[in-house]
Amino acid sequence: MIGPLTAAEQLGRLRLARTDGVGPVTYRRLLSRYATAAEALDALPGLAKSGGRATPPMVPPASVAQREIDSVAKLGGRILVLGGPDYPPLLALLDAAPPVLGDVGALAARAVAMVGARNASANGQRVAEMLAADLALAGIVVVSGMARGIDAAAHAGALSTGRTVAAIASGIDITYPPENADLQRRVAKGGAVVTEAPFGTAPQARHFPRRNCVIAGLSLGVVVVEAAPQSGSLITARMAQDEGRELFAVPGSPLDPRCRGSNDLIRSGAHLTETAADVLANLPDHPSREGLARSPMFAHGPLPGLAEPPPEAVSPAPNPNAVRRRVMELLSYSPTAVDDLIRRCQFSASVVVTALLELELADRVEMLPGNQVVLVG
Amino acid sequence: MIGPLTAAEQLGRLRLARTDGVGPVTYRRLLSRYATAAEALDALPGLAKSGGRATPPMVPPASVAQREIDSVAKLGGRILVLGGPDYPPLLALLDAAPPVLGDVGALAARAVAMVGARNASANGQRVAEMLAADLALAGIVVVSGMARGIDAAAHAGALSTGRTVAAIASGIDITYPPENADLQRRVAKGGAVVTEAPFGTAPQARHFPRRNCVIAGLSLGVVVVEAAPQSGSLITARMAQDEGRELFAVPGSPLDPRCRGSNDLIRSGAHLTETAADVLANLPDHPSREGLARSPMFAHGPLPGLAEPPPEAVSPAPNPNAVRRRVMELLSYSPTAVDDLIRRCQFSASVVVTALLELELADRVEMLPGNQVVLVG
Repeated sequence: MIGPLTAAEQLGRLRLARTDGVGPVTYRRLLSRYATAAEALDALPGLAKSGGRATPPMVPPASVAQREIDSVAKLGGRILVLGGPDYPPLLALLDAAPPVLGDVGALAARAVAMVGARNASANGQRVAEMLAADLALAGIVVVSGMARGIDAAAHAGALSTGRTVAAIASGIDITYPPENADLQRRVAKGGAVVTEAPFGTAPQARHFPRRNCVIAGLSLGVVVVEAAPQSGSLITARMAQDEGRELFAVPGSPLDPRCRGSNDLIRSGAHLTETAADVLANLPDHPSREGLARSPMFAHGPLPGLAEPPPEAVSPAPNPNAVRRRVMELLSYSPTAVDDLIRRCQFSASVVVTALLELELADRVEMLPGNQVVLVG
Repeated sequence: MIGPLTAAEQLGRLRLARTDGVGPVTYRRLLSRYATAAEALDALPGLAKSGGRATPPMVPPASVAQREIDSVAKLGGRILVLGGPDYPPLLALLDAAPPVLGDVGALAARAVAMVGARNASANGQRVAEMLAADLALAGIVVVSGMARGIDAAAHAGALSTGRTVAAIASGIDITYPPENADLQRRVAKGGAVVTEAPFGTAPQARHFPRRNCVIAGLSLGVVVVEAAPQSGSLITARMAQDEGRELFAVPGSPLDPRCRGSNDLIRSGAHLTETAADVLANLPDHPSREGLARSPMFAHGPLPGLAEPPPEAVSPAPNPNAVRRRVMELLSYSPTAVDDLIRRCQFSASVVVTALLELELADRVEMLPGNQVVLVG
């Protein structure tokens, strides 16, 4: 178990997460390298400069971060910090777990996501509502994305008998789409609304993939109801599967293009789902071993961001410039596994990881989920 | 290859098949034991008497059988005899392959069955029609049962571009249900109508299971469109699967009870089928090994009814009464494998098989598919 974070550490981590160029992977690396967020923030300019960056990264001032914390609190919510005790543990297993989450309401552990078409048929929405109501009745929290169609039906169904969580793409204070404003308020009251986006952020198309990632990450399984091929719902489903979460799909008529994606999922192994019993019978207590094994965090322990740095090889410290030069030589525009890079470098792991941190803060490389790294073009 | 049967042998086999107490299994055994149908017919009264039957079995006179052949011919059809060259080879693989089939039209080898609800939805019928039309276009013969709903849609769809086969429960001269009379005539003209029932037989509920068996037996696979749980379509599907045929099912909404049976099939491994491509991609050239291995006929050679009797052990012929007594002692009211019976009897296989024939003709035992035998209560 991890104790509560101090207010200062909470503030520091929020500032770090909101810093220009610090993505989920860099955030984790910085916190696994420095004892506190303050130390990481202090080190940032030097690291970026070592990596070759001309101007230091933009860190939001403490006053701005404090204002965000206060605004969320005024709505009755909190900022959840990756590595803190209230951060959802299943979401923390993701490589790309959001460093901070705005949260209004309460997150619960045993959850199932339900996603599908915005332009869902009346029958599809009815199925989603019934499934969600029955899952909620069985004590399962239903997670969805507060979109039109299946999402709204899932939230509404679960609200009638239990709790539900909406992961949204905008700031926690924004309701979208307009017709779901009342539903979003009821979900915040009865369950929770969470978001990775800073307070006040308007929803934009580019935020939706990260929102989908939160939906999948919060859940032990994803139920897909009416999804066309190539739809966002299928991307959420694949992401969930990659993270070892269980996949469920509701079958539908071949005549309806909205069912082709969900039928495809069944064809490729998703559980055919007609009733909540189909979900309950196949819902594991934990993400599958396969998914966990693929998550680098699992190897280091269950609480992300707090892993010890790898043990240093006893040898004279190499010249940092030489290390960065060698790392840049070995990298290319297709992703390379960091473990492979370390082996080929002949430098110690911590020396290479430091070089990668510096290079990322200088926008010369990008860290990818799955402990991979790629040159920035 | 097997040559054509003489007219006399054809007539003899029809009489044998139409004899009181001669089911598919006994028919095969008699023809594997006697060189001709005439010899089998001559032996019948003696066998039945040995088995303990008071009066000889009712064999229809040659004139009656000839009248049936002539009536079918007048409709433009033929009687197909198991063991004859025109008998459908896939159907012949079944333990319970019908000894004779009335046939108007032409049967083709590479066929897929399509079955489903009589009270199918308009959409379900449309899917069946589209699938059947596309399969026919791809050169596949579509087999169905000429019932209302899915059956009629499948025949109509396949007729538009190709051939289709209707297996019916009545005599070849009867059309049923009335609204399909025209469709049945068009199927007989463009494809084939087949039946196990004698000429002039009215359709009765008890004929439908045997009709379903012919549908499954003629086909490399069965496509189920809209089938409720416990429906006849599911029985046909299970039968097909037991015989090593491939199973396909069209998914449907959980809200429609007519889709629950077909969805269940997908859940338990049937190919999820939206288009003809799903069928074509998974249609084998032959029934699966597993199914074939289970069929006793396969072990004896591909042409049923003509297998050689098993080699006799060189030992003095045992007393037939003693053999029958011992066999009756060993049997019970739950099915026993004939192989097991032979092993426990300590008599040669042919001696035991003869005793079983006699006992079956005397209605004291019943031969079951899968080379099993049971006491008649």
